[in-house]
Amino acid sequence: MRQLASGVSIITTRHGTQRRGLTATSVCSLSLEPPSLVACVNRSAEAHDMIAASRCLCVNVLAAHHQLLAEIFAARDGTKGDSRFLRGNWGTLVTGAPFLTDSLAAFDCEVWHSSELFTHTLFVCRVVTAHGMASDDPLVYFDGGFTGLASGSARHPARGIGRQG
Amino acid sequence: MRQLASGVSIITTRHGTQRRGLTATSVCSLSLEPPSLVACVNRSAEAHDMIAASRCLCVNVLAAHHQLLAEIFAARDGTKGDSRFLRGNWGTLVTGAPFLTDSLAAFDCEVWHSSELFTHTLFVCRVVTAHGMASDDPLVYFDGGFTGLASGSARHPARGIGRQG
Repeated sequence: MRQLASGVSIITTRHGTQRRGLTATSVCSLSLEPPSLVACVNRSAEAHDMIAASRCLCVNVLAAHHQLLAEIFAARDGTKGDSRFLRGNWGTLVTGAPFLTDSLAAFDCEVWHSSELFTHTLFVCRVVTAHGMASDDPLVYFDGGFTGLASGSARHPARGIGRQG
Repeated sequence: MRQLASGVSIITTRHGTQRRGLTATSVCSLSLEPPSLVACVNRSAEAHDMIAASRCLCVNVLAAHHQLLAEIFAARDGTKGDSRFLRGNWGTLVTGAPFLTDSLAAFDCEVWHSSELFTHTLFVCRVVTAHGMASDDPLVYFDGGFTGLASGSARHPARGIGRQG
């Protein structure tokens, strides 16, 4: 699946005073009405059990300049647990899951349904509130590494997909 | 969700002699073992009912030069049904769902489980076989339009995500 480009997000959660988070590329939009998304999380990920317990998560969509954060939350340097939040400016919205205040977009979600599928849990989430809409270029994951969009194309897109036909 | 960049795929299916397909951005990897993915398809999409009936689909990951095909399968020009396959070189792999022979990658899948969620059906799919791995740059969807990756970055990625931490 490394040929399938994707945006990069940090999925966070909170349970009591504890915060957890992981870098994720398996997040996609589900429906617009109600606003919903799906997130696939490896059950071995540190944040997995806390998401399952708290039933809330925030999907923080990263900009190109967030690559270091993406690496920290991907456990590249061994940083674990709440310490991952030492970098970046984090706030909360409705659910209490940490949101990155300068993310391209943050989707604060309640877990509506979850299914254990093979090595992962698929979380179906309803978006409670959204924040952000920064105008930076996104961080993109493709072919095993981080990259960015073609210069100048991000805000001058070609014709889009109007709807699913 | 327009801030979440994604690769662009054409999801195809076949039932008897009929083929259907749609352009999709809501596809993501689930597990590596077994190889599996999830695809969210609007129930109003022309191909939806045939996927539900045939229980097979092929995810064809598009290269940047496939933008016209992406538009055709997104119903931009009103082309419907089997006529959408007049452009492009299409073959079959195992399931019989059409695969685009020069796609970046094609994942021929059996539907393992499906859930109707709001306006969409979430198809959980097991990859039966994969084909492709072309070295072209991918087509990317971001902020409501098609774009591509930063020049030269796609095959020279920065450090990647080793695993979910």
